[in-house]
Amino acid sequence: MSKRRITILPGDGIGPEVTHEARLLLEEIAEALGEQWTLDEALVGGAAYDATGSPLPDETVALCKASDAVLLGAVGGPKWDHLPGSTRPEAGLLGIRKQLGVFANLRPIKTWPGLLLASPLKPELLSGVDMVIVRELTGGLYFGQPKKRVEDGAAVVDTLYYTRGEIERVVRQAFMIAQGRRKKLTSVDKANVLESSRLWREVVNDLAPEYPDVEVEHILVDSAAMQLIQRPNQFDVVVTENMFGDILSDEAAVLTGSIGMLPSASIGLDGPGLYEPVHGSAPDITGKGIANPLASFLSVAMLLRHSLHLDEVATQVEDAVLSVIESGCRTRDLAGPGEEWLGTKEISSRVRSDVRG
Amino acid sequence: MSKRRITILPGDGIGPEVTHEARLLLEEIAEALGEQWTLDEALVGGAAYDATGSPLPDETVALCKASDAVLLGAVGGPKWDHLPGSTRPEAGLLGIRKQLGVFANLRPIKTWPGLLLASPLKPELLSGVDMVIVRELTGGLYFGQPKKRVEDGAAVVDTLYYTRGEIERVVRQAFMIAQGRRKKLTSVDKANVLESSRLWREVVNDLAPEYPDVEVEHILVDSAAMQLIQRPNQFDVVVTENMFGDILSDEAAVLTGSIGMLPSASIGLDGPGLYEPVHGSAPDITGKGIANPLASFLSVAMLLRHSLHLDEVATQVEDAVLSVIESGCRTRDLAGPGEEWLGTKEISSRVRSDVRG
Ligand SMILES: CC(C)[C@H](C(=O)O)[C@@H](O)C(=O)O
Ligand SMILES: CC(C)[C@H](C(=O)O)[C@@H](O)C(=O)O
Repeated sequence: MSKRRITILPGDGIGPEVTHEARLLLEEIAEALGEQWTLDEALVGGAAYDATGSPLPDETVALCKASDAVLLGAVGGPKWDHLPGSTRPEAGLLGIRKQLGVFANLRPIKTWPGLLLASPLKPELLSGVDMVIVRELTGGLYFGQPKKRVEDGAAVVDTLYYTRGEIERVVRQAFMIAQGRRKKLTSVDKANVLESSRLWREVVNDLAPEYPDVEVEHILVDSAAMQLIQRPNQFDVVVTENMFGDILSDEAAVLTGSIGMLPSASIGLDGPGLYEPVHGSAPDITGKGIANPLASFLSVAMLLRHSLHLDEVATQVEDAVLSVIESGCRTRDLAGPGEEWLGTKEISSRVRSDVRG
Repeated sequence: MSKRRITILPGDGIGPEVTHEARLLLEEIAEALGEQWTLDEALVGGAAYDATGSPLPDETVALCKASDAVLLGAVGGPKWDHLPGSTRPEAGLLGIRKQLGVFANLRPIKTWPGLLLASPLKPELLSGVDMVIVRELTGGLYFGQPKKRVEDGAAVVDTLYYTRGEIERVVRQAFMIAQGRRKKLTSVDKANVLESSRLWREVVNDLAPEYPDVEVEHILVDSAAMQLIQRPNQFDVVVTENMFGDILSDEAAVLTGSIGMLPSASIGLDGPGLYEPVHGSAPDITGKGIANPLASFLSVAMLLRHSLHLDEVATQVEDAVLSVIESGCRTRDLAGPGEEWLGTKEISSRVRSDVRG
């Protein structure tokens, strides 16, 4: 029996609503295991800015670093859109990623049999869709310097910078994940234009012999944007740099029909992982009790598996979400026209009671 | 009656096959108008590299600059993939864009009633899809310096650089195009992360008062990647920087069901425009007589409209393509399983005879 510390960062918008349910789930799991877990909460994003003037207060960073894992809700909202870059809620999110060194963002994308109708794609394209996008998360255009106005404000520069080591560590993660799956790795770059992509491709090819059981392919980012829609089931593990990963993982996310069902995990070499639903803070539905907590539950499942090594419980949570969906329960975002749906708390209790057994 | 000069750059793969048909179309149009047009051909891409050692020989540049318009087929292929960046076929394409100063790449995307079944999207999402993506084409990550290995090869840098002027001119183009259409402009950026996007957004907002009849919205690139799939008919004119435009325009391209039908125009302030099908060189079907020439015909239509100001003939070409498709003719890429289809030359004659009336 061990003492686990998890820091919860509710953030903004529907963040607090969904992490509240996730917290209940974590408490019930700890109790069922007969363990004592410490669940702390801390401020991030707009909520942190409002309370402290910073979107990422030092205490938040300290608490996260002292934890086994961090669960985040969502950050941002129109309320803070006028702020300069450095104090915007997003700076809190980018800051905590960088501080925790979570360079690999894992985004599993799977179609749910019960939800095929909600997808914009024709159902025949959806069968067998089951991929993980591994996005580099702490380098590239997001962090490279210089990143500023130049020539007295007449021009501007952002910098896409990567060290070979930064590329290597995320590509290794992707190879290892592929080994535990269908053993296919698709590396996405723009090697016909970008020097950084040429190094990226070189690193993938250099590492490939160490993972002889994994089949490797390289595709260009523009082609990837097409193929994700045309034949999404051809992908197993996809690895790409930060900006491409941001775009492609969101594109892939909508194929499943609901972004309200998609979790993510951001992990480093050691230290706590950061887990967050893929959906945003959804200011338009905040406080209405209708947010879908399932992406945060599935993020909890990833947290249990990757940071707490509780694989069995992780699977229990995933199975519970699946069975509640298969039983026909829907949240508002999942419901078809005229279909009935449950509020945040109702669907949360169904899933949690299923987990309890 | 005027003397027009058009330079044709067949390029690689199926490029020569489709531009051959486009040339016939241009010759027939000149004849019907009773005009004498000069149609020159020049080398670009891998074909140019093989013949001269350079993917963009000086004579090609000179000929293009002396023309009213340039029609390009496609460049690239596995044969040249081992070459270093500067002599790859793509360098020829990037070079001619830069040399001609064609900073605005226009990509119209429309669904064809006869082809709805070929789309990966559910038909109900496709009705009313009719947008133009305006992609900045001669700046950003594609051309910014430095763009090289650094730290003795241990790291690499690409540079996303824009001057205010470069942003202004392409955004103005987009505003003007919107004025001639449904008067809605969507500017796509990543202003929550990139300094260049914050300047981009500022420029759009600064120019907006000059186009009071155009409604402006800003969306983030990751959100755009989702919305293109979820609600493609919400877009009228979309404007974005080079790299985002490359990804999003290809994503949008597949929505219509065939990239074999999509033209593009790249234009500058004055000087010749560059017209090319969106599809690539398709090495796998090269020389088989089955390439779809319709995207090159529709590129000719854009050339007639934008560079030769022959709006009426342009519309005739577009109508001819539409009516051949509506009459049920298909090329191999458009045909459903078991459906009959026509080769390159057969569908080309149908369309051209329809143009001749
Ligand atoms: C909020 C934003 C800075 C963030 C990103 O671009 O990384 C988000 O889009 C994401 O994907 O987590
Ligand atoms: C071939 C390549 C350099 C080019 C680009 O990225 O611009 C192509 O993808 C395009 O969109 O025309």
